[in-house]
Amino acid sequence: MGSGPEQEHRQFVIDFYGAMAYGELSAFERFSADARFSPTLHDRITIGKLAAEEFAHFELVSAELADLGADVEAAMEPFQAFVDAFHERTRPADWYEALMKAYVSDAVSGDFYRAVAVSLDPPSRALVSRIKADTGQAEVLRVRLAQALSGDARLASRLALWGRRLVGEALTQAQRVTFEHQFLGALLRRTDPASRKAATDALFARLTGNHSRRMNDLGLTA
Amino acid sequence: MGSGPEQEHRQFVIDFYGAMAYGELSAFERFSADARFSPTLHDRITIGKLAAEEFAHFELVSAELADLGADVEAAMEPFQAFVDAFHERTRPADWYEALMKAYVSDAVSGDFYRAVAVSLDPPSRALVSRIKADTGQAEVLRVRLAQALSGDARLASRLALWGRRLVGEALTQAQRVTFEHQFLGALLRRTDPASRKAATDALFARLTGNHSRRMNDLGLTA
Repeated sequence: MGSGPEQEHRQFVIDFYGAMAYGELSAFERFSADARFSPTLHDRITIGKLAAEEFAHFELVSAELADLGADVEAAMEPFQAFVDAFHERTRPADWYEALMKAYVSDAVSGDFYRAVAVSLDPPSRALVSRIKADTGQAEVLRVRLAQALSGDARLASRLALWGRRLVGEALTQAQRVTFEHQFLGALLRRTDPASRKAATDALFARLTGNHSRRMNDLGLTA
Repeated sequence: MGSGPEQEHRQFVIDFYGAMAYGELSAFERFSADARFSPTLHDRITIGKLAAEEFAHFELVSAELADLGADVEAAMEPFQAFVDAFHERTRPADWYEALMKAYVSDAVSGDFYRAVAVSLDPPSRALVSRIKADTGQAEVLRVRLAQALSGDARLASRLALWGRRLVGEALTQAQRVTFEHQFLGALLRRTDPASRKAATDALFARLTGNHSRRMNDLGLTA
């Protein structure tokens, strides 16, 4: 199966795709389950379309894993506990929280995948771009959230708090993956522990910064 | 908008598509929500694929409604209460019941749509054929159910009972639609009440017969 570094790189890519695939499969299941609680049929269709796209992305990443000769289920398995923990700790209380969760987790995971993909090979970067390119859906969510928040100070206060919790839980799980799987540091191509820590700290600071900017755009305090 | 009978036919088609669209949207939400409880990742992917196909069918029917100049949400609205009642009364207790529900409701609704489409125009028949043609998924469900049932007499007894309840609730709601909306009788092109009743009775007898045959194929008493 090739030389040491090549084999190592192949395993990085499989891990990365495995994490993405399980993330997309889970997002599909959660968003579509939440769709039912939408206030209007129109909103149900909006969330449903988003969920169906997540499944299409899952199938895209699965196909890439299969092309690499990897078993899709085996590749996802190491990341299941982290993604499941994130979802268990962030169960939306209503449709607005579900909408915010979709918006935040789509944006944060997109930032995360893109940051990691920079240190990968061109085909991996192209795959991430394909999956995270359709910002049309993010914009639909943003507009719908802005509409719901408009003039509703109580909802704004609740969703600001909820947004903080979502990003906090997402980063907690991402850090757990980093430490328990040496996943992120390795993907960032750092070999010594201090440099790995600096790289992951910088990445997490960037993810938090982007999140704050998005919350501010919605008129929320991040 | 054309002459009386033409306008009436157009409304029949819109009602029919509206019922199908809402049925597909709901099936998508329920199946994908149930997917999470699958015993294995492989099973989650199987159910997820089925749910994603239901959403694709929903989008197909929506596009047809839009082509007819109909508002998709308005077309679905009259059938919402019936479909919701079916799902509320048939909440699966576990993944096996969810699997059986997917199998039974997909098969019964397919029979129902095909029976109604016979009395519609060729484009409507073609649409139903496209949507209900991919029996590949039904076969996947049947094989997985047969595998789960093999040698498990307790599960077989529970799922036989569950299958009866599913088909009973499905036909109850179909009958409510018939009576409250004059929907089915009109679609079956019967004008006098006695002939409508005979036609709907014959249709329901056929749906029940097909269901029994499918249950027997699984080794279950229908």
